[in-house]
Amino acid sequence: MIVCDGMGDRADRAREFQTPLSVAKKANMDALARDGSIGLIDPVAPGVRPGSDVAHLAILGYDPCKFYTGRGGLEAAGAGLRLYQGDVAFRCNFATVDAKMVVKDRRAGRRIEGRDELAEAVSEMRLSDPSAAFEFVPTVEHRAVMILRGKGLSRKVSDTDPHKEGIPILRSIAEDEERASRRTAEILNEFTEKSFKVLSNHKINAERAERGLLPANIILSRGPGTLPPVELLGRKYCIDAACIAVAPIVRGICRVAGMRLIEVQGATGGLDTDFKAKVSAAVQAMKRHDLVFLHIKAADVASHDGDFEKKTWVIEKIDEAMAQVIESVDLAKDYIVLTSDHATPVAFRDHSEDPVPVLVAGPDFDISGITKFSERTAATGNLGRLLALHLMPIMMNRLGKVEKFGF
Amino acid sequence: MIVCDGMGDRADRAREFQTPLSVAKKANMDALARDGSIGLIDPVAPGVRPGSDVAHLAILGYDPCKFYTGRGGLEAAGAGLRLYQGDVAFRCNFATVDAKMVVKDRRAGRRIEGRDELAEAVSEMRLSDPSAAFEFVPTVEHRAVMILRGKGLSRKVSDTDPHKEGIPILRSIAEDEERASRRTAEILNEFTEKSFKVLSNHKINAERAERGLLPANIILSRGPGTLPPVELLGRKYCIDAACIAVAPIVRGICRVAGMRLIEVQGATGGLDTDFKAKVSAAVQAMKRHDLVFLHIKAADVASHDGDFEKKTWVIEKIDEAMAQVIESVDLAKDYIVLTSDHATPVAFRDHSEDPVPVLVAGPDFDISGITKFSERTAATGNLGRLLALHLMPIMMNRLGKVEKFGF
Repeated sequence: MIVCDGMGDRADRAREFQTPLSVAKKANMDALARDGSIGLIDPVAPGVRPGSDVAHLAILGYDPCKFYTGRGGLEAAGAGLRLYQGDVAFRCNFATVDAKMVVKDRRAGRRIEGRDELAEAVSEMRLSDPSAAFEFVPTVEHRAVMILRGKGLSRKVSDTDPHKEGIPILRSIAEDEERASRRTAEILNEFTEKSFKVLSNHKINAERAERGLLPANIILSRGPGTLPPVELLGRKYCIDAACIAVAPIVRGICRVAGMRLIEVQGATGGLDTDFKAKVSAAVQAMKRHDLVFLHIKAADVASHDGDFEKKTWVIEKIDEAMAQVIESVDLAKDYIVLTSDHATPVAFRDHSEDPVPVLVAGPDFDISGITKFSERTAATGNLGRLLALHLMPIMMNRLGKVEKFGF
Repeated sequence: MIVCDGMGDRADRAREFQTPLSVAKKANMDALARDGSIGLIDPVAPGVRPGSDVAHLAILGYDPCKFYTGRGGLEAAGAGLRLYQGDVAFRCNFATVDAKMVVKDRRAGRRIEGRDELAEAVSEMRLSDPSAAFEFVPTVEHRAVMILRGKGLSRKVSDTDPHKEGIPILRSIAEDEERASRRTAEILNEFTEKSFKVLSNHKINAERAERGLLPANIILSRGPGTLPPVELLGRKYCIDAACIAVAPIVRGICRVAGMRLIEVQGATGGLDTDFKAKVSAAVQAMKRHDLVFLHIKAADVASHDGDFEKKTWVIEKIDEAMAQVIESVDLAKDYIVLTSDHATPVAFRDHSEDPVPVLVAGPDFDISGITKFSERTAATGNLGRLLALHLMPIMMNRLGKVEKFGF
């Protein structure tokens, strides 16, 4: 199952209704479309504009309306942290504030020398409430994850990160009437204040000041989340599932789903990723796993940049790499699914609500006979228009992993 | 409304993507497809593999997620038994066990001479709980239905039938935390033990032993179910609905829906059924009823046998019989619906999750212009891809039986 993040696009009158997928030269995808079934999937439902987290939950067969419990939990899982039921995880930034708590730089200059030492100082802080504890782990550059642990916590609290510079940090407040939410907001505020005290006085920041650098003097938090109460994919369908992905959020969801993470040299999660290495690793992994989930982020990166040509180039590179799929995979016994988690139209530069093309090929899928894979051809394809949530049950049926409903 | 059980199939690479429906010579169905609208329906939802019971509830417009309350209740209704709210019905078998309660034959040799006398002995048993009673009625061959009656019963109990030979019978246990479930399991276990005592000592079994036959010395139970709390079709839509079906489960659902059952001479529910007699009876019944539901089981039988040619033959026989429909039915005022309750691919030999073709023709349905009725043509047909649950409301709208939602 190959998911090209943000590959879907939308017809643009200014470009004569062409999309990167419709103009890309991609003989391999087109051949699979012809030899398989094609259609459209709505990531969540028509008219719902999905985040990557929500879209991936749906693609893996977990109804996001039931199982989406915030970004933080998935992000923590993606960073390799162990999350327990009841924990609340936050995405954090080292940031720079002035004495009035106005945010000068949400990233404290992005690459922070001595970051790990600063993180250690944060970790040594103690909360005044003895029944609560936290774990603080730096991840990439200025980013970190903080997990609150203890009884009676809630994810229904607001961010301390104002998401903008030039305005003061925010006090976290409860987003519902629960006592647990009020308590969690208080703890988060205490954590934030203490981080300012500890970091402001840290010698690393004194050194940074000498060198004319912004101090990394506070931890801002956002996106509280808990572990989604999903049934592991392996248990739900009795399969052995693996995942190849770099993006932390996708890794997090796959970990939460109990999939094995396969590391690939040269995979970067960016435009410079080694497309061939990733596809090759996936084809290899098919020998040992019932399901291999391959996530490629690059098309989404080009889409957020609004770069039509770059996105087209990415699709062509993915298609080139897919030659190995055509060569190695036997459609008389194996299945291929190719789709996108959501559309990120280059003209819109963000995720949109558009349905995205999907292609399934294998021993018992009819052939569409359609010789081109695009948003337009998929719209009248032989699969019709499904929800992303349907994809996993359909495929698991083909693998004989689904119980009958009724008799 | 003609429902050809299991007629839907799936493209099979090994057969060049042909299906029984795509290769069958069936001029009448094809003509109706051309003169009507065609599309696909998912029996429950994409990716859900349905039992016949669940699929038929959906086709009759009852959401199985709400109204499926187990097989036993529908089966009891199909056997003509009167079921009340609160009753729990089981499907039963006369079976053979040894002294250690290991199942030797789940059917006690299938055709059991003196079965009714044995059933009478079972019926005369008394349960130790005076507030519970049961009704035990033999049906076909080794089969029977048992209805538990009384206050505080539940269908959330496990089977005593191990569904396999060579292993001991099972003790029924509660499948939830309810007191009613624990009580029902206890009663079922008592019923099973007593049936062994009564049947083991019965003179019919002594005679069987003398003749070298296996004793029918226990009653095994499975598939507990209650009466689904459905609104009668006649009341829901203010119509007079009739049903022609032999399969007990379909008869049961139609009875529960309040439809009139029409008996047809020569209808067997098997491959040897009189297709023409059934279709003829349905065409006749259209004169007196707003809705006539005709169920033909044969294609499903051939499918479970994995017999492509036989299934094709069945479809051709049904088509031949449908000449009467073409002759007698006036599409300027009557409606025809032709579909399948679910797919039973011959290569899979069981119900699958595939959507099935559907055809609707009548005064105000557009013509598809498509001159062939098959899984493939239906996939890009003018009805799109619907749920089976949508079919009845659509048809009832055409009959002017549906109230506006809103103003």
